[in-house]
Amino acid sequence: MIKAAIAGGTGYTAGELLRILLNHKDVTVTAVFSTSSAGKYVYSVHKDLLGDTDLKFTGEIGNPNVIFLCLGHGVSKEFLGKHKLPEKCKIIDLGNDFRLDSDFEGKHFTYGLTDVYLHEIEGSDYIANPGCFATAIQSGLAPIAKAGLLKDEIHVTAITGSTGAGKRLGETSHFSYRDNNISVYKPFTHQHLGEIRKTLRDISGEEPPQINFVPMRGDFARGIFASIYTKWNCCKNDEQALENARGLFNEFYKDSPFTFVSDDPISMKQVVNTNKVLLHLEIHQGYLHITSAIDNLVKGACGQAVENMNIIFGLDRTEGLKFKPSAF
Amino acid sequence: MIKAAIAGGTGYTAGELLRILLNHKDVTVTAVFSTSSAGKYVYSVHKDLLGDTDLKFTGEIGNPNVIFLCLGHGVSKEFLGKHKLPEKCKIIDLGNDFRLDSDFEGKHFTYGLTDVYLHEIEGSDYIANPGCFATAIQSGLAPIAKAGLLKDEIHVTAITGSTGAGKRLGETSHFSYRDNNISVYKPFTHQHLGEIRKTLRDISGEEPPQINFVPMRGDFARGIFASIYTKWNCCKNDEQALENARGLFNEFYKDSPFTFVSDDPISMKQVVNTNKVLLHLEIHQGYLHITSAIDNLVKGACGQAVENMNIIFGLDRTEGLKFKPSAF
Amino acid sequence: MIKAAIAGGTGYTAGELLRILLNHKDVTVTAVFSTSSAGKYVYSVHKDLLGDTDLKFTGEIGNPNVIFLCLGHGVSKEFLGKHKLPEKCKIIDLGNDFRLDSDFEGKHFTYGLTDVYLHEIEGSDYIANPGCFATAIQSGLAPIAKAGLLKDEIHVTAITGSTGAGKRLGETSHFSYRDNNISVYKPFTHQHLGEIRKTLRDISGEEPPQINFVPMRGDFARGIFASIYTKWNCCKNDEQALENARGLFNEFYKDSPFTFVSDDPISMKQVVNTNKVLLHLEIHQGYLHITSAIDNLVKGACGQAVENMNIIFGLDRTEGLKFKPSAF
Amino acid sequence: MIKAAIAGGTGYTAGELLRILLNHKDVTVTAVFSTSSAGKYVYSVHKDLLGDTDLKFTGEIGNPNVIFLCLGHGVSKEFLGKHKLPEKCKIIDLGNDFRLDSDFEGKHFTYGLTDVYLHEIEGSDYIANPGCFATAIQSGLAPIAKAGLLKDEIHVTAITGSTGAGKRLGETSHFSYRDNNISVYKPFTHQHLGEIRKTLRDISGEEPPQINFVPMRGDFARGIFASIYTKWNCCKNDEQALENARGLFNEFYKDSPFTFVSDDPISMKQVVNTNKVLLHLEIHQGYLHITSAIDNLVKGACGQAVENMNIIFGLDRTEGLKFKPSAF
Repeated sequence: MIKAAIAGGTGYTAGELLRILLNHKDVTVTAVFSTSSAGKYVYSVHKDLLGDTDLKFTGEIGNPNVIFLCLGHGVSKEFLGKHKLPEKCKIIDLGNDFRLDSDFEGKHFTYGLTDVYLHEIEGSDYIANPGCFATAIQSGLAPIAKAGLLKDEIHVTAITGSTGAGKRLGETSHFSYRDNNISVYKPFTHQHLGEIRKTLRDISGEEPPQINFVPMRGDFARGIFASIYTKWNCCKNDEQALENARGLFNEFYKDSPFTFVSDDPISMKQVVNTNKVLLHLEIHQGYLHITSAIDNLVKGACGQAVENMNIIFGLDRTEGLKFKPSAF
Repeated sequence: MIKAAIAGGTGYTAGELLRILLNHKDVTVTAVFSTSSAGKYVYSVHKDLLGDTDLKFTGEIGNPNVIFLCLGHGVSKEFLGKHKLPEKCKIIDLGNDFRLDSDFEGKHFTYGLTDVYLHEIEGSDYIANPGCFATAIQSGLAPIAKAGLLKDEIHVTAITGSTGAGKRLGETSHFSYRDNNISVYKPFTHQHLGEIRKTLRDISGEEPPQINFVPMRGDFARGIFASIYTKWNCCKNDEQALENARGLFNEFYKDSPFTFVSDDPISMKQVVNTNKVLLHLEIHQGYLHITSAIDNLVKGACGQAVENMNIIFGLDRTEGLKFKPSAF
Repeated sequence: MIKAAIAGGTGYTAGELLRILLNHKDVTVTAVFSTSSAGKYVYSVHKDLLGDTDLKFTGEIGNPNVIFLCLGHGVSKEFLGKHKLPEKCKIIDLGNDFRLDSDFEGKHFTYGLTDVYLHEIEGSDYIANPGCFATAIQSGLAPIAKAGLLKDEIHVTAITGSTGAGKRLGETSHFSYRDNNISVYKPFTHQHLGEIRKTLRDISGEEPPQINFVPMRGDFARGIFASIYTKWNCCKNDEQALENARGLFNEFYKDSPFTFVSDDPISMKQVVNTNKVLLHLEIHQGYLHITSAIDNLVKGACGQAVENMNIIFGLDRTEGLKFKPSAF
Repeated sequence: MIKAAIAGGTGYTAGELLRILLNHKDVTVTAVFSTSSAGKYVYSVHKDLLGDTDLKFTGEIGNPNVIFLCLGHGVSKEFLGKHKLPEKCKIIDLGNDFRLDSDFEGKHFTYGLTDVYLHEIEGSDYIANPGCFATAIQSGLAPIAKAGLLKDEIHVTAITGSTGAGKRLGETSHFSYRDNNISVYKPFTHQHLGEIRKTLRDISGEEPPQINFVPMRGDFARGIFASIYTKWNCCKNDEQALENARGLFNEFYKDSPFTFVSDDPISMKQVVNTNKVLLHLEIHQGYLHITSAIDNLVKGACGQAVENMNIIFGLDRTEGLKFKPSAF
């Protein structure tokens, strides 16, 4: 039994991790760390867990085999500075502290994009879990980078659910603002561009082209839907070009238990509440158009984090991650 | 031209009043009072007004003919204590300070439920504008009270949009919480019960029966939909009972330009972005079942406030209040 | 391994059953019966199942140990008339054909409300799975009926998600109509009243009082939220009355793995995508007010159907039913 | 008084036209033509109009000064073939029959994009009203085309509300599908590309560059939000480039009563239920990024249609088009 601790226990990702880990047959959650809420029932904050657990938040980390860091971006380093973890305790960081800066006080953090870095993850003790947008977008680009065909500018528009912005209240997370609304934020400058570029560079061995990324705030709570396109001049005609692209993608993901290429157009809800990535490819006017859908809290955060845990502890990669889709 | 000032200029009701008054042919908005935002463009807060006005928030009330108080509930008295208004300045309070306590420092506030108190309003200088739930529910009960037939307990469930809770951020106004969710709040104890009971007492001349009111938070931004029922034992059969009830309602509302009884079942969006009240009546198992729909920000607040202004200034009651419905 | 067939394979409940059964360790789905779609991949209709199964719809039922009937209400009898099932094949009907008329051609259908009829279900081969509204409402009333305290009229308003109306397209399931809208349908006459009254009669041994039930169409896809109240005159004061009511409910549900009484007010999303029933009790003005929340497709249909299967096959009642809540 | 008829009276655009025209001081609606619904009250179909009009659908066109064609795309020609209109009756077609093929049986249809073709419209009797996506996208590109700076590929992602697809029921307009969902349709091939290219060619006098347009289905009922970018290499630095772009846009729209350039980022709901176009410009990585928002039923259809009517009848362009925004 893996003893798991969660730091930053009251946030959205901590709640989602609990939803997953409480049903994971090889894990016992030994600590849900929160100094502010220590002593309170976990279900007093994550209210859907009423009836599922009598765990309380705690101010002690205890002696876990793995700790998940669900802290605000930038806070993980501070946390590791302050708290001495047990020797041999694995760390899976859901923030962005170690995605680019992968070395910290003698620890090397492997970037936990499971479909790309499976072998590196297997031997790792420390994981920098990928960002949600980053996971959706990289999943759509990795097979092309692998084939060395990522030569031209990349155009991405991706829409995220409100849970992506976390629990913090703000004008754009107010229901009266967001209901039936759409808006753009951080166009061309979103912080996930860094980790996307790094992965593509790693895979292809060369500097990736410019990525024009327009993120949008969607009026739904869960999910990310990305529309991606780049020049695709490989073939005599569109049919062959499509066959060629599908071939690359199917080959790249042939061993992935969670990533699938759909022949039919996809919609976001096909993957909500699952750990899947769903991709669809079309060829138009010399472009390969890729749509990519994930659940931002599952594959985009906690599901992939548990997948990483499964891998580093030598479990089946899908253990505890076969969720009933919500579908509607 | 009526010179109108708005106090509490940055809140939701102030914004909605501006949306109405800027198109009102007999009104000039002379001051949008907000100490915290003085000097900023009104459209910097009420962003849909970009292009419609170059007004700025101001720290001075000036010399208006009428002031609309869009302050938090309980703050209107404090405001009137602090600020000396021009003599003869009419006051329309959108808060709840004067709905039950109608006399304040020599001023008498008439309860501005236009379908019921039209004649009292005509001679008034000071108006306590009704609450949103109160307007929807009273509209469904006033004709029965008028006929002296409100004898038995009244059962009300009413669902409100998120704008009813104002601009303040809170857990239940977070999009991630409220999207696709429903919950109950303040069951049997909502503060609007006081004004509802007072009106019914006024109309019928007797103490109204118990009102069991369960308010709900809906996952939409605008609108109130109320389901109301009470015993209805008037007649030999359901058909006659329905005819009898419709007769009372049609008679009661025959001169109302905004309140209509629909023969067909109604849905809330039929009235969104209008100043209408829509009612539908059915008889079942000895009960008269009434559904009532309004837009909480229009008929439930600012539309009725301007209707009151029209009445006290001798304008046509519908002036500036014939809005294009949004319908969808 | 239990061999399970599903009749009516293309509808919403068939899809949800598949979402559950494909992950159930003791079940193999051997047939997804649909004459109209025979030969097509199941995921071509239930698109979220892409990657989870390569099953195809079939025109043959084969030789299952259990068949789930996911046919339109009223069609199950016709189906059983037309198709000869293997002897010993258990039947779980998700329609309403056998909820009131429990005997059909020598087969006795037990009403599958698991919290109430657990022991009857254990010895049954044929199950009439309860309706969704019926499950939410009965869960709120059964403990009172059991205590013989259901003496006074019962007032119920319950709001359902759009999936409750199935896949069929209609004016009220059009997104443009339903988005940000609320409406009432079948007030006082909903067809689930029959099964609710039958259960209450069974439990209490006496004719239940009148139930005034106003169903509403909510603008969300999954879930039912019910507000229920009835007179509660047991005790000296509200505090004791509440303690008394909570005592009855906690005793009634003490062995239930899925039904919980929350001390705090509840919201619908706490149970979405789970097999739970969540209840909350308050006392106001002589009434016991009960809120009850379920997922209409899970506890209100397919989750409870699988729970029934687990029970009749002697499995743990919760097998395959511990889902990750979607929460948001 | 302009006598106006509406053909195709039961559809969404006919309803929206009625919402506008019933409040237009210079218009009387003399016929709402629908053979299938002739004799029924208009409010029996457009239910929000209860209380606003006692018009009935009619099978006769009568003798209008203007007729609005709200027929399915492709049906307008058929309609004009079948029905003889009074001589001098103006025609405003809301379908796409005459947007590219502007000449039909001796009539020349002017493309009614008011901000671009104002002077041509003034002298016209026949108007081809622009498409909704086309209006949002052209509004973001016209000033650049005018300046002769549209040289490089154009990238557009635009999301539409469900009313854009009309009243017809279909899988993707089912609430259970669309609620909290996002999907792409007709990527790179949407039919509005034709009219967009034609306008840009007209304005700039040269063949426009390739336009890569990815349309999306949003989970809201009203509105279009477009994200557009193209290379912008004019200046020494981003600040000057932005100033330069804003200058072009402000100059282009300086006389427009409905189109505004916002210094702050915009969200779609700022324009819902108005006839406005709202634009926002940013410069990033050598690109000019433009966001554009309209209400698809108002500026994207009926509002612009009435604007065209105002112009051809010599009325103030804004007559009857100053709507209260819904904002929420």
